[in-house]
Amino acid sequence: MRVAVPFAAETPKTRLESVLTPAERSTFARAMLADVLRAVVEAGHEPTVVSTAPLDLETFALPGEIAAAASVTVDDRPLTEAVNARLPGSDAETADDEPDPVAVVMADLALATPDALDRLLTSTADVAIAPGRGSGTNALLVRHPEFRVDYHGTSYLDHREIAREIGADLETVDSFRLGTDIDEPADLVEVLVHGRERDRAPAVLRDFGFDIDRLEGRVEARRPNDSAD
Amino acid sequence: MRVAVPFAAETPKTRLESVLTPAERSTFARAMLADVLRAVVEAGHEPTVVSTAPLDLETFALPGEIAAAASVTVDDRPLTEAVNARLPGSDAETADDEPDPVAVVMADLALATPDALDRLLTSTADVAIAPGRGSGTNALLVRHPEFRVDYHGTSYLDHREIAREIGADLETVDSFRLGTDIDEPADLVEVLVHGRERDRAPAVLRDFGFDIDRLEGRVEARRPNDSAD
Repeated sequence: MRVAVPFAAETPKTRLESVLTPAERSTFARAMLADVLRAVVEAGHEPTVVSTAPLDLETFALPGEIAAAASVTVDDRPLTEAVNARLPGSDAETADDEPDPVAVVMADLALATPDALDRLLTSTADVAIAPGRGSGTNALLVRHPEFRVDYHGTSYLDHREIAREIGADLETVDSFRLGTDIDEPADLVEVLVHGRERDRAPAVLRDFGFDIDRLEGRVEARRPNDSAD
Repeated sequence: MRVAVPFAAETPKTRLESVLTPAERSTFARAMLADVLRAVVEAGHEPTVVSTAPLDLETFALPGEIAAAASVTVDDRPLTEAVNARLPGSDAETADDEPDPVAVVMADLALATPDALDRLLTSTADVAIAPGRGSGTNALLVRHPEFRVDYHGTSYLDHREIAREIGADLETVDSFRLGTDIDEPADLVEVLVHGRERDRAPAVLRDFGFDIDRLEGRVEARRPNDSAD
């Protein structure tokens, strides 16, 4: 199985711009990527970062076994195109009767654990999806050679429809960890609540001064110097 | 096993007041409760609605097997007190060596399915929790006779700490469906995306005129007459 981890290297996490500087967003995005790569390797796979720009994994100072298993390929096409170019049946492998399955795991799934990934990656369905909030497709496993992605808009619903059209059976993997992509300020608290001790992303947020703040209703991650509006 | 479903009968879903009238909020809350009761019964259990005010389940027109298995008890105490009064070891059962386990499933888990509940309710841990966003405790299974809840603030983290203090082992159940409580306008889209054909809550939202709207970034549930701000 091939596991692709798309990564927007140049303008990472723009929707966090109200709470993080560009340099902080880059540091945080790289920390989440490092955590995702570690989870993929510990689930028994060798991830390939599909980066929009050159990326030197050596600068990540990954643990040896993670660094040895991970690689980078640069593809500056839009996400949907870059992923479709890597799905089963899209290349020379078309001639194979049974092309290798391909998984696509987003680089901002900071809560991903080997166990959660394993539930997706051991699916025997033609297509398996771990949906995110708002009908996102956070992680995906494709075995069917005709399935293609479309990440725009309500991609989870669209992917269900695409699977139906080609007669592929689709499994939805019910995971809070894989369903939580870290996109917006309200998501940061999840990193602090569910991150594990050795994870980089929660450590980075704490370095930036974030802590769990107990507000009315849902709690948030907040810095002491942030305004309370 | 006893399964309690706390329900705020008098002021349901106040955080949806920007998008739903009081009458709509009540209708929607009752629809979600009906869906939760159905899921609990289909998971093989007999739910008791712990309602803050009298509630006549006959007015819900539940299917026969659901109506036969569900019951209502009125308890107008705050949530934490009302739940703690029902946990193992809190009453006459204290004398038992092995009191019945008790599950607490929130009434706004509109995405709950028998399968998702089953993963929680078959846990053999002293305490099992399906966390929600913002460190919420969306669903809970308690076997340990000393465990007590505190739903205020970061309850998931607090419950982990309480379990640790009493030496109870705690399992976290990784479920997007149980992790999605429907509290705020941004949550409504999840009901439309993940609700099943026979569920009442998505049908109610559609009756109210909501549909999935494809906006920039995450999608939302929106009514045609809502402003786009």
